Amino acid sequence: MKRTLGPQNSVHPTPIPLVMSGVGEEASMLAVAWVMPAGSKPPALALIIGKRHHTWDLIERCGEFTVNFAPARLYREVDYCGVVSGRDHDKVADSGLTLVESSVVAPPMIAECPYNHECRLVAEYELPTGSHMVIGEVVQSHANEDTLNAEGTRVDVAHMDPLVYATGNREYYRLGERLDAAYSCGKALVKE
Amino acid sequence: MKRTLGPQNSVHPTPIPLVMSGVGEEASMLAVAWVMPAGSKPPALALIIGKRHHTWDLIERCGEFTVNFAPARLYREVDYCGVVSGRDHDKVADSGLTLVESSVVAPPMIAECPYNHECRLVAEYELPTGSHMVIGEVVQSHANEDTLNAEGTRVDVAHMDPLVYATGNREYYRLGERLDAAYSCGKALVKE
Repeated sequence: MKRTLGPQNSVHPTPIPLVMSGVGEEASMLAVAWVMPAGSKPPALALIIGKRHHTWDLIERCGEFTVNFAPARLYREVDYCGVVSGRDHDKVADSGLTLVESSVVAPPMIAECPYNHECRLVAEYELPTGSHMVIGEVVQSHANEDTLNAEGTRVDVAHMDPLVYATGNREYYRLGERLDAAYSCGKALVKE
Repeated sequence: MKRTLGPQNSVHPTPIPLVMSGVGEEASMLAVAWVMPAGSKPPALALIIGKRHHTWDLIERCGEFTVNFAPARLYREVDYCGVVSGRDHDKVADSGLTLVESSVVAPPMIAECPYNHECRLVAEYELPTGSHMVIGEVVQSHANEDTLNAEGTRVDVAHMDPLVYATGNREYYRLGERLDAAYSCGKALVKE
């Protein structure tokens, strides 16, 4: 039995990376749950970042940013980056997170985040639904050695233990049980 | 120690709803992992759907679609909707999923999916990174009674058991342990 709730915008579940921009002592970061892949060739990400955010000011000024995926154990640090503004708080100092130099872009990455994308701002859109969308081309990606798959080509989420966000619930979760391989387990249902 | 991987586009983890369009016997659906909220007032979603997909043809023709979040136990059915095309397979019949009428838009919703958005196509963008982005305004949302929170106002993911997708791994997961409440647990780190 379905209940009608009125129009909502939750998707279940979402990632919640820390988006960092600015250089040197100015560098600051924001927890962003409205993010998705937006291209393969070249690799790209789409994010919604309100123009009221300090991190948006930094991105607009330097045209570059990094997207840093935290492990589940850092949920307090990620939440902190969403509850205060970088305009009046030193998020890097207060969170205790460590910055490391990026290889291509000027803003740094976060050492404790096991998966990191370096991005160049390539487009912005003011959506008819009132939001401000940012498209970043990924110019380099990095991962902590101990989170890689056997081939060393990508992160294995089983090693990474990524932080998961439930938008409607406003709660943080861990990833749970592995169910099966995609583009594979559904083939049993195919009728020729 | 970080390893450089070359530019990638994974975000960890993602939702993977079934996006349905078309009416009557034409109705078909696609598993879409590139999706995010894209507005609150009005509620909106952003999705990347390649123009090669049959589901895109259906959306283009009727200008409406539904976004249906499956429970973890239906991972095979969701995967099936990503491995074949609706051009030459009757995905509704083969998946065994049940359609229910939407209240506002013409395409139906999926009964077995406990959370459903009815969407109207309000914008499209050809991104400079080669992808085709679709913005849907959510005109109504519904949830199965047994997945609601105590107030009956929204889904509780703890009841819904949403299917989770790991893009790089190409694997399906369950949601795991609840960690803490957002906009709250990080306040302990705030220095005045």
